[in-house]
Amino acid sequence: MISGVKALVFDVFGTVVDWRTSIIEECAKLGNSKGIVADWGLFTNGWRARYTPFMDKVRRRELPWTNLDSLHRMALEELLVEFDINGLSESDKTELVLAWHRLQPWPDSVLGLARLKQHFIIATLSNGNVALLTNMAKSAGLPWDCILSAELAKAYKPDREVYEMATRLLGLRPEQVMMVAAHQGDLRSAQQVGLRTAFVIRPFEHGPDNVLDLTPDPSFDLVISGLGQLASEMGAQIQRAGR
Amino acid sequence: MISGVKALVFDVFGTVVDWRTSIIEECAKLGNSKGIVADWGLFTNGWRARYTPFMDKVRRRELPWTNLDSLHRMALEELLVEFDINGLSESDKTELVLAWHRLQPWPDSVLGLARLKQHFIIATLSNGNVALLTNMAKSAGLPWDCILSAELAKAYKPDREVYEMATRLLGLRPEQVMMVAAHQGDLRSAQQVGLRTAFVIRPFEHGPDNVLDLTPDPSFDLVISGLGQLASEMGAQIQRAGR
Repeated sequence: MISGVKALVFDVFGTVVDWRTSIIEECAKLGNSKGIVADWGLFTNGWRARYTPFMDKVRRRELPWTNLDSLHRMALEELLVEFDINGLSESDKTELVLAWHRLQPWPDSVLGLARLKQHFIIATLSNGNVALLTNMAKSAGLPWDCILSAELAKAYKPDREVYEMATRLLGLRPEQVMMVAAHQGDLRSAQQVGLRTAFVIRPFEHGPDNVLDLTPDPSFDLVISGLGQLASEMGAQIQRAGR
Repeated sequence: MISGVKALVFDVFGTVVDWRTSIIEECAKLGNSKGIVADWGLFTNGWRARYTPFMDKVRRRELPWTNLDSLHRMALEELLVEFDINGLSESDKTELVLAWHRLQPWPDSVLGLARLKQHFIIATLSNGNVALLTNMAKSAGLPWDCILSAELAKAYKPDREVYEMATRLLGLRPEQVMMVAAHQGDLRSAQQVGLRTAFVIRPFEHGPDNVLDLTPDPSFDLVISGLGQLASEMGAQIQRAGR
């Protein structure tokens, strides 16, 4: 099933990086420096909770194409009202939005990607915009071969155009591309376009109180606990195929 | 002038890689294996000479958007007729087109890029398609942060949409981006969009008989002999700016 895979494309937020811990830390740091007291865990949950609704506005064409940096900024403005936080300057807000460019990787991500890169093309396939993903790769040391983003299709996952854009730009057939994600909806949409799928179980993406269904759909090609295990599984495939 | 530069975007064919030597070698290798005798230097020159005319067909909309792999293939078909070369199979032709994915870097490219990557975003900005540039980066060891291609703008350099796409996707202002190229027309077009410019003198791009005008336009921000010198010049800028 997966012996013909040439490229692995990765969801990023939650799959490769721990957005929640990173954003809480950056918010708390700014809060401390400004004397703002808030539950930054709840604040971060609220920011992420606005992610899908804002993308849906683009999907329903209530907004023209708007990249994720700009959606993060719009969501932040709502959130500051909800949490009754005043006193952030324009440059504070800009910096907070840029915190999403500096998310920290899960402990297995950098080494797992480096191992996979020896045998496969590894690329992002994220709703994050190109600048966000490029800056994150630099700050987190993620060794991507190529930055692919929803921004290049002007559509957000799980719209099929995003997966089709990836296979077309990589010059590969769908079955030569494997989608790697911690979110089952992302993988099911990738399957519908013909991609192979690897489900990464990340129980702490949403903090100690997991909110995701982690019971894997039996149709996925691989279920793994991290990118190190993914590299081992894919390496075993290479050996079996006699490459 | 160049102290605010955050990203360097590179022309690739001729600027970073030595297309001519690489293509001659691959053609000669295939020729030997098939018993085909030809002047592979002339053949390679002829292939590259068709590059601009074929892109012009796209520019004039005589062809719909067509990526460089496909234009290389169309040009190859013409060339095989001109050189009266028969006996290449479909898979031989596919392999020859893929030779453009395996071009070898100039001796200073890999180390120069690695040094620049420590301080700047480094990205391709090439008329090559995304798959070509991604595969080349892997085979040649070019450590790009991001693959930017004319294919993403569905327009070919020197059309201004290509340079505008690069600054927009990188989330930067034009003056924060420097175009690095061995071709003055590419740099002049980048200037018109507001980019900074570095001219790399590559006297042997077209082999022993240089056909390019290498007298630098005095308006370029930098003139260098290779990517090592570019890293040194940009490093000196960083020190002067006290970063």
